[in-house]
Amino acid sequence: MGAANGQARAAVVGTGLIGGSVLLRLRDAGLDVAGWDPDPATRRHAAERGVVVPDALEDAVAGRDVVFLCGPLPTLPATLTRVAGVTDDGCVLTDVGSTKADVATAATAQGLGHRFVPGHPMAGADRAGLAAASPTLLDGAAWVLCPAPTGMAAFRRLAALLIDVFHAQVVPMSAPEHDTAAALASHVPHLLAGALAGAVQRAALRDAVLALAAGSFTDGTRVAGGPPARTANMLLGNRERALAELGAVRNVLDELAEALAAGDAGALTARLDEARAARAALGARSYTTHRCEFPAEVEHAGELAYLRELGAAGGHLTGCRVEAGAVAYTAHLPVGPPLG
Amino acid sequence: MGAANGQARAAVVGTGLIGGSVLLRLRDAGLDVAGWDPDPATRRHAAERGVVVPDALEDAVAGRDVVFLCGPLPTLPATLTRVAGVTDDGCVLTDVGSTKADVATAATAQGLGHRFVPGHPMAGADRAGLAAASPTLLDGAAWVLCPAPTGMAAFRRLAALLIDVFHAQVVPMSAPEHDTAAALASHVPHLLAGALAGAVQRAALRDAVLALAAGSFTDGTRVAGGPPARTANMLLGNRERALAELGAVRNVLDELAEALAAGDAGALTARLDEARAARAALGARSYTTHRCEFPAEVEHAGELAYLRELGAAGGHLTGCRVEAGAVAYTAHLPVGPPLG
Repeated sequence: MGAANGQARAAVVGTGLIGGSVLLRLRDAGLDVAGWDPDPATRRHAAERGVVVPDALEDAVAGRDVVFLCGPLPTLPATLTRVAGVTDDGCVLTDVGSTKADVATAATAQGLGHRFVPGHPMAGADRAGLAAASPTLLDGAAWVLCPAPTGMAAFRRLAALLIDVFHAQVVPMSAPEHDTAAALASHVPHLLAGALAGAVQRAALRDAVLALAAGSFTDGTRVAGGPPARTANMLLGNRERALAELGAVRNVLDELAEALAAGDAGALTARLDEARAARAALGARSYTTHRCEFPAEVEHAGELAYLRELGAAGGHLTGCRVEAGAVAYTAHLPVGPPLG
Repeated sequence: MGAANGQARAAVVGTGLIGGSVLLRLRDAGLDVAGWDPDPATRRHAAERGVVVPDALEDAVAGRDVVFLCGPLPTLPATLTRVAGVTDDGCVLTDVGSTKADVATAATAQGLGHRFVPGHPMAGADRAGLAAASPTLLDGAAWVLCPAPTGMAAFRRLAALLIDVFHAQVVPMSAPEHDTAAALASHVPHLLAGALAGAVQRAALRDAVLALAAGSFTDGTRVAGGPPARTANMLLGNRERALAELGAVRNVLDELAEALAAGDAGALTARLDEARAARAALGARSYTTHRCEFPAEVEHAGELAYLRELGAAGGHLTGCRVEAGAVAYTAHLPVGPPLG
């Protein structure tokens, strides 16, 4: 990506909510960046917002140092093949899809493991499309990257760019662990919101329920307002893990319902107290900071293991520099035992 | 309550989050108001905030025109008996509990149906206690009141006070219909939030899930941060209806899970679209306004039926005036068919 990120040449393929936000931020950061979208109206809209948008995908990505693939989840494998074919072997490729295992497997099967780094920025909005995109949407976001054994150099370059331009908190994880965590962090919550809002839509007292809607309902159904097809794609892309984690949530729901049915205030309060511990840990996290260095010129197995353990433990990176033959990470780990 | 609400003498028994907020608002509105709480430290705290707080409950409520009972749900029937015994028969009593059928039945059994008006303001906070109370917490809130056949005069007086002082949107409902609607609007969402947060607390990747927590998770678990005992009391107070409505939500969740397991994008999208309709109706309600008058001096069956139908249809009152032998309501009804 050149001597500094300011000189990297980037492209964004698929300029909806996330891709458009990536594009606008890269542009505002002074990078040479081009966008492309299969929809001609979206390309015109992007051009009106002052972005370089060639008519042909190939013209947008050729000669770039990094390409963000931001189209819908089902289109990713085909787009990856197409973009890989017209970019240099040194061009880093990444995506922003909500699940990572399938696309990581597809990339490895295509021999792209050394330059494709699966990614997932944890941000979104109820609205979709370029009209809802903003250069600040991803500012400071937790941004998962999935380093592969053969792709450490690509990981480092991309992590450095995301930290520099987006002030990202880069969360390094294995693709399967990401998908398991994302099931609980995002996919199951979408199913619960859909079930709650769907049941109200069918209720005889629907309008009274909406009139009484307290914060618990308004908050708990917010993501049910998102585009159904986008949510369906996200869920289908992580089907097995979403269903498995939904099973775990159902188990706790069964325990709550049993305690309630039995009128057992003690058991009910104990279950709710357990839930509160997770919520308290979410709101009140503090972190310890450390630095960790590895030799830059060899594929060091310890580096990959270190990164994956950091992410699985809830940690993230805010620094990634290659200097004097070493890569130095600035990392943050959550402190202490679960809050009670 | 005197010729105008400004001259009504009020009392609040139980000065936690809701009761304290009622107390502070009545005081700020210029009413003669006294508070009382069983906890001496809370009484001292209330006195420090400039409120009249006698040591004895009887001294707080004697001679008052209206008394708000704001203690924990399980204490309400006993407090109702005690307060009714030391107030005039013309003193209007109300509560702010999250379920209404049981307390309404208890009041009728005690011969208080003519002056006890079950109430439920739809507002709250994660925090509890007087320290979290605020005179603005209930400003403009939807505030359910449950008029009884023998209690129309008390209902009118209380509705007028709430509209005048709190700018409340008074939602008149029968107590059982309130409890059914509240189950979906509040109680089931608390169960879902508890199940989601509880499952994360038990997850092997707990800290990674919290690191990835997207808006769907943060929003969907917010009320799991509330006091477990308070939430348990709320759920236990509406046990049968909460479990019944949880069953309705589970049915939709089963349909979503089946569509997901089958990889049926069409069915999954259709269910999510149904959910989105309820969410869209929540965000984009518009109302038609009308006035309705009834004779004030007789118990008019049409008045009660009109009010209950208004609330069941998602409507509310923003005006209630008794003048020249008639009661005039200003009412608002949501417009149009379900949004698709």
